[in-house]
Amino acid sequence: MSEKPRVSLAVVKRLPKYYRYLGLIADKGIIRVSSQELSKITGLTASQIRQDLNHFGGFGQQGYGYNVEELKSEIEKIIGIDKSYKAIIVGMGNIGQAIYKYRGFNEASGFKIVGLFDKDKNTIGRTMSGIKVNDIKNINKFLQKEDVDIAVVAVPADSAQEVCDILVEGNVKGIWNFAPIDLKLPKDVVLENVHLDESLFTLTYYMNNLKDYPGTKN
Amino acid sequence: MSEKPRVSLAVVKRLPKYYRYLGLIADKGIIRVSSQELSKITGLTASQIRQDLNHFGGFGQQGYGYNVEELKSEIEKIIGIDKSYKAIIVGMGNIGQAIYKYRGFNEASGFKIVGLFDKDKNTIGRTMSGIKVNDIKNINKFLQKEDVDIAVVAVPADSAQEVCDILVEGNVKGIWNFAPIDLKLPKDVVLENVHLDESLFTLTYYMNNLKDYPGTKN
Repeated sequence: MSEKPRVSLAVVKRLPKYYRYLGLIADKGIIRVSSQELSKITGLTASQIRQDLNHFGGFGQQGYGYNVEELKSEIEKIIGIDKSYKAIIVGMGNIGQAIYKYRGFNEASGFKIVGLFDKDKNTIGRTMSGIKVNDIKNINKFLQKEDVDIAVVAVPADSAQEVCDILVEGNVKGIWNFAPIDLKLPKDVVLENVHLDESLFTLTYYMNNLKDYPGTKN
Repeated sequence: MSEKPRVSLAVVKRLPKYYRYLGLIADKGIIRVSSQELSKITGLTASQIRQDLNHFGGFGQQGYGYNVEELKSEIEKIIGIDKSYKAIIVGMGNIGQAIYKYRGFNEASGFKIVGLFDKDKNTIGRTMSGIKVNDIKNINKFLQKEDVDIAVVAVPADSAQEVCDILVEGNVKGIWNFAPIDLKLPKDVVLENVHLDESLFTLTYYMNNLKDYPGTKN
């Protein structure tokens, strides 16, 4: 692994934003952009932007700014979306199905979904956009044959840890978890949670405590 | 509005976790719990827990701990889920439909969905679990008749701001946004984002930069 400095979660969370805005700028045919211009678009300060990007090596040139395509492609590499990933979805309820159909999570975006799993007898065997839903009991065997990088966990909270233990055993390296539970995983398996309930409760909290609300910030 | 102290986003984000764990503890018939016991379950330190809960007035008693049901119901009030909210969903694609079916966002949980909107001619007029999908053009009129507290925005990024301007005009007080865009809203309208792309890219970033990964933490 390379010798990059440790980067905080806040910086990591801003990278997709930079990537998104650079995509919009590139689509307009703009070739270079200054940190001041990026600041206007993103709402972040120019010095914040320069500082963030300096974590990964200085891309900009004093007085020239950033080459849009170059910076975009560098950020793509940093985020790791210049590669492709094999993924499975475990739990084909509403959330699992929505993620399966989500445009940001398909082969064109670098995520090849190679397996769908559920425990419901009525769902197992159904073909969804070309893939047959497999019995959740077969995950072990599936992972022995197929190298899976990412697993989406969209099962109920009470079975999510058990599912994850099987995924870890099967050498899955990243878990995108939608179950409302705090999973325990070994340090080398990356967990990213989407906790809808917590998000919704944050909304209601601030609606009821407007004075605490920090306002919309990018 | 009451004179509670300002509370940081980190504390606000932990409240739903406390609520969730207290629910699990209450389901087991446990009547009281100490901050040490809560610490074991949640993975947070006991002093962190006491400090968090002290923001909202000290609920615990030295040597006794917290009354589980009481603390749960207090947190319910703090989060604002002791009330009920009227909600609409704008954009009935995959994400909109998944949120509509999401158990955490139904009448039993305090969220009454009173309207569904889409701009697609094939979707407008369809009845989904008892509600007919309305033309997105009719939101203005709808909001004049109906007091809506929360709107779920699940439209494509390029129409999300326009939709939000209409929602703000129609006196919606909270926006749960799933569009991959940074919305601009007046200060008294609360925005909560679920940015799936950013979540996914955080996952891939850490999979590729394992040394930066802070590990699973509650």
